[in-house]
Amino acid sequence: MTLNIGVVGTGKIGQEHIRRLTETLAGARVVAVSDADLARAKEVAAKLAGAKAYPTGEDLIAAGEVDAVIVTSWGETHAAHVLAAIKAGKPVFCEKPMATTEADCSAIVDAEAAFGRRLVQVGFMRRFDAQYRAMKEAIVKGAIGSPLMFHSAHRNASAPAHFKATMAITDTAVHDIDIARFLLDDEPVAIAVRAPRANRHAGGVADPLLILMDMRSGALVTIETSVNIAYGYDIRGEVIGETGTVSLAEQSDVVIKTKGAFSGRVFGDWPERFDAAFDAEFRAWIGAAAKGGAAGSSAWDGYVATAATVAGVKALESGASEPIKLREQPKLYARTSS
Amino acid sequence: MTLNIGVVGTGKIGQEHIRRLTETLAGARVVAVSDADLARAKEVAAKLAGAKAYPTGEDLIAAGEVDAVIVTSWGETHAAHVLAAIKAGKPVFCEKPMATTEADCSAIVDAEAAFGRRLVQVGFMRRFDAQYRAMKEAIVKGAIGSPLMFHSAHRNASAPAHFKATMAITDTAVHDIDIARFLLDDEPVAIAVRAPRANRHAGGVADPLLILMDMRSGALVTIETSVNIAYGYDIRGEVIGETGTVSLAEQSDVVIKTKGAFSGRVFGDWPERFDAAFDAEFRAWIGAAAKGGAAGSSAWDGYVATAATVAGVKALESGASEPIKLREQPKLYARTSS
Amino acid sequence: MTLNIGVVGTGKIGQEHIRRLTETLAGARVVAVSDADLARAKEVAAKLAGAKAYPTGEDLIAAGEVDAVIVTSWGETHAAHVLAAIKAGKPVFCEKPMATTEADCSAIVDAEAAFGRRLVQVGFMRRFDAQYRAMKEAIVKGAIGSPLMFHSAHRNASAPAHFKATMAITDTAVHDIDIARFLLDDEPVAIAVRAPRANRHAGGVADPLLILMDMRSGALVTIETSVNIAYGYDIRGEVIGETGTVSLAEQSDVVIKTKGAFSGRVFGDWPERFDAAFDAEFRAWIGAAAKGGAAGSSAWDGYVATAATVAGVKALESGASEPIKLREQPKLYARTSS
Amino acid sequence: MTLNIGVVGTGKIGQEHIRRLTETLAGARVVAVSDADLARAKEVAAKLAGAKAYPTGEDLIAAGEVDAVIVTSWGETHAAHVLAAIKAGKPVFCEKPMATTEADCSAIVDAEAAFGRRLVQVGFMRRFDAQYRAMKEAIVKGAIGSPLMFHSAHRNASAPAHFKATMAITDTAVHDIDIARFLLDDEPVAIAVRAPRANRHAGGVADPLLILMDMRSGALVTIETSVNIAYGYDIRGEVIGETGTVSLAEQSDVVIKTKGAFSGRVFGDWPERFDAAFDAEFRAWIGAAAKGGAAGSSAWDGYVATAATVAGVKALESGASEPIKLREQPKLYARTSS
Repeated sequence: MTLNIGVVGTGKIGQEHIRRLTETLAGARVVAVSDADLARAKEVAAKLAGAKAYPTGEDLIAAGEVDAVIVTSWGETHAAHVLAAIKAGKPVFCEKPMATTEADCSAIVDAEAAFGRRLVQVGFMRRFDAQYRAMKEAIVKGAIGSPLMFHSAHRNASAPAHFKATMAITDTAVHDIDIARFLLDDEPVAIAVRAPRANRHAGGVADPLLILMDMRSGALVTIETSVNIAYGYDIRGEVIGETGTVSLAEQSDVVIKTKGAFSGRVFGDWPERFDAAFDAEFRAWIGAAAKGGAAGSSAWDGYVATAATVAGVKALESGASEPIKLREQPKLYARTSS
Repeated sequence: MTLNIGVVGTGKIGQEHIRRLTETLAGARVVAVSDADLARAKEVAAKLAGAKAYPTGEDLIAAGEVDAVIVTSWGETHAAHVLAAIKAGKPVFCEKPMATTEADCSAIVDAEAAFGRRLVQVGFMRRFDAQYRAMKEAIVKGAIGSPLMFHSAHRNASAPAHFKATMAITDTAVHDIDIARFLLDDEPVAIAVRAPRANRHAGGVADPLLILMDMRSGALVTIETSVNIAYGYDIRGEVIGETGTVSLAEQSDVVIKTKGAFSGRVFGDWPERFDAAFDAEFRAWIGAAAKGGAAGSSAWDGYVATAATVAGVKALESGASEPIKLREQPKLYARTSS
Repeated sequence: MTLNIGVVGTGKIGQEHIRRLTETLAGARVVAVSDADLARAKEVAAKLAGAKAYPTGEDLIAAGEVDAVIVTSWGETHAAHVLAAIKAGKPVFCEKPMATTEADCSAIVDAEAAFGRRLVQVGFMRRFDAQYRAMKEAIVKGAIGSPLMFHSAHRNASAPAHFKATMAITDTAVHDIDIARFLLDDEPVAIAVRAPRANRHAGGVADPLLILMDMRSGALVTIETSVNIAYGYDIRGEVIGETGTVSLAEQSDVVIKTKGAFSGRVFGDWPERFDAAFDAEFRAWIGAAAKGGAAGSSAWDGYVATAATVAGVKALESGASEPIKLREQPKLYARTSS
Repeated sequence: MTLNIGVVGTGKIGQEHIRRLTETLAGARVVAVSDADLARAKEVAAKLAGAKAYPTGEDLIAAGEVDAVIVTSWGETHAAHVLAAIKAGKPVFCEKPMATTEADCSAIVDAEAAFGRRLVQVGFMRRFDAQYRAMKEAIVKGAIGSPLMFHSAHRNASAPAHFKATMAITDTAVHDIDIARFLLDDEPVAIAVRAPRANRHAGGVADPLLILMDMRSGALVTIETSVNIAYGYDIRGEVIGETGTVSLAEQSDVVIKTKGAFSGRVFGDWPERFDAAFDAEFRAWIGAAAKGGAAGSSAWDGYVATAATVAGVKALESGASEPIKLREQPKLYARTSS
């Protein structure tokens, strides 16, 4: 049984997903693509045996041969495409952010709740990373007692030229925010942002940042974003419980001893660090979508992520702690983070 | 382009490979199976859309719909199946051992050399393991100088009931022997085996063993096999060079701190430890077989592995160092370990 | 040349210092002791060959046979004893806090500055810890670029019965505050305290805490204090620079592999963790005091530590960030943290 | 109570011990020195308050003011000095080797046994190293089951100009041999030596070596000596038990992340690696000698070390496994390794 997939948005990420679904993973086939740039969509389709290019995402979503949809278009258009998929009753994998405003996210949540079954999966791949899953498992098993704090660090070797400080919240820390909710099984209630002395290699952008997020239980999440740290791509995390802690272990294939030192490798960038997680994420999605459903982060998770980052951006500007006021949660999402 | 595969031998390992090719990896389809137990072959075929069960491996290999062959039958029958595949000019992936005697291995080497192109890939998955590849890369880059020794340890939590001491050489250390050749880019010339005090949990079998293998360059390989060590499945390795060393790093997803200790996980068994290596091994094979060829360990590598383990078994019995006299290497295999 | 030492305060810490100076380290002799409990002082003196018990610290400091003074009396009395030592022109090692109020600390700074030479050493042993010294060395050498953040964690297995949340600042985090100044070569300008959900094993005390300290350069220091974390005594630290980071390495003598895990030991409590640092601290002091001077943390460092913790206690109560306004620094202390 | 020590041999090691006893450790005073070069002895004595230079070791040992003796003279003369100390009934610390022949070692054992109490301590400092002690403790506690193998590696950055291959046994591996006996609580019965391809930086010397030592229990010890490995001084060890293993942990003060890698420091040479062990060794000796006795490695241990290295040298030359035939053990040494 092969899942027939339509991909809305054939930019860099879209093409990477198409490659993964076509060349790496079993069980799926890309049969349709669309892009704001139709020529690019046609070019991508031409390389795929039997794939068709559609002029709009809406056309693609409506197409009969499309069983399930991947949305990797421009962020501002996500909401419309996701809503169209829900309307069509088709499983949809949407890259983060699910939508850029709380209102749009909320509309998706309402639409899916009305539909009555999960169709939406949001692309937070960390939930499929073996390290974070082992961390979650340790917490759930009670290995460290109840969690009280989570220290997360999100470090990139360098940020793209157009990077703004707010993007450290909306594009970078959003992953830490989602995984914090997953690990702690908890919801955020407030967020504050500290901007220490800026890295002189950050081109005038406030970098690093320290984000403080208060959770409903009283647990405290700290997120360091350092997006111009030169040495590599490094994701660190430690959950502090009442009786112990659990940390992401250092990952290096080998240890070399030479010239007075032992050393191991740090990842270069996120595609390498999370390659296996992306595989697992899409495997889970293909399996769930083939049954008409979804796995991993839900529309509710997408909504909370946007609500938290919107408040985070406000907090960066105000210098104060900003509340994160979440709407009522539909019953569909009763267990958000398991 | 999908590769149509026939699988000879539908036992535990065969079924595991079928699962991997069908459910996990893109690019291949199992279209034919055979087994000494035809009923089992039919049962396995029935679960695969459109696969056919053949009464014999030879029939399967000859079948028109079969592009490439996987041999996971009983070890004694490997040679016949591999030779049949070469005769048919079809790419063949053969589980280790390629054959159980040097003569059979040599016949395969001759047949393939006469064919003029590599068709045979032997299932030494370590060559596709990210850790060993990083180790090899470090050596090739000159990070540790010329290699002088390689210390390998191969530890299993427990051995099966029918385990004999010779199997620690033919089934266990054979992997270390192949990877030693790969890492050092060198051939073995002699082998000796030491049997220290036996583990009382080994049921009377000589376990652990320490195998000493001399390489053509003068480098020395030590292989500890401990197949009843209870604590887990643990593969250790360190290459000692003239100016440094490179070791396999400890692999654990997380570190937990509790009750006065930090701790990480050791693997339970080989399917888990080498899961990603098996994926990479079959991906490489699918890619190479689709072009009519092979990747990874060659028939020559299969031959040397058998020559070395046959000498190793003799050394275990004699208590002396036994020579490993290799036949002339056909030009086809000029570069054995890249 | 043996340094003749008088010890003011023969409680638990005082006796421990006496033991170290008498039984472990070369170069010093305890010749005089005093204590608020004269009987105890006499008892301690009786065990030391040729030591005399004095009724007051002032008498001891004035005694002709006393070359140098150690103050380990009750914190409230430190200032008087340190000032008396300065007045007598004698080197004085004072346990932290140097004094409990900024005014008293300031008076000591003035007195020493008037004396014109350092006499005072404050007992921040971390500055003599091999790990922190290596961390400092890495920063000074430019291995990580200019420091932007320092994440410190100070974890105790359990807090004593009389522990109050403010003590997590004045007694616990004070060490992190001093070492932050040492590592970053920087002064604090403001401090804020966050109290997440309390550990249920903390007996109603707000624990853990997260302390945020802003430095003059703009660098940000985060200090987690978790003083009932059960698993052990664990001091973690990572300095984030513009191009890299430096962390305290995990310290365990051995790694044990058993029952599916590898594990190493976490320290039980601070006397064990910092045993070698205490040796080094007193060796440095004996050496410096023998020449009439002092090493390690100065009276200025003692003053800033108290100023910062006083502001920290205020911040814990106010919930706001509180400024740390430092007095003018006498020239004597021009290079505070080298 | 201060121990009055006489030091026989004021070369580099002798002076280093004098420094440690004088400047670092409490409880001892060097009151007498002697050296084959009397002028050097006088020079060293002149720097020590109240120390006297003696023309011979025998004169020094006989001197009334000498409570205990340290022998750091030329190896060939150790036996005479140790025997003289036993004759004088004075505790004696002797650098390894205790004596260079089995006959001399045996004479010392006989003399001490006749004296009836331990007076001799041999300078195998590893027995006082925190890491090896933790390893021993883990074994004794049964953490890994009964030991079956011990893999030891002894690596030096470079060997001195006069180094010969036999010294890798007598001067280098002798430490591994002693610690193997300590860890396994076992005696050697045979030894073999393998010389792989030589390191081209070893100046024509057979380096590295792999030494195989069979123990009475059947346990097997492997010792790699690599004395020109450039990268640093590195002592590795792992004991393989029936249910687990225990290894010396990597020791680095900090971990630095920069330029795509994390790294930690390897020791440069043995004085740094074993500095704390030397402190502990002499503290134990001072304490024991003050009571007229000895701690750590005994004369028996010194005897076995020489017997094993003599056989090892023979094995290097013969290429065969050579027996180590130990004399009868006097009752005095009934518990050798605790």
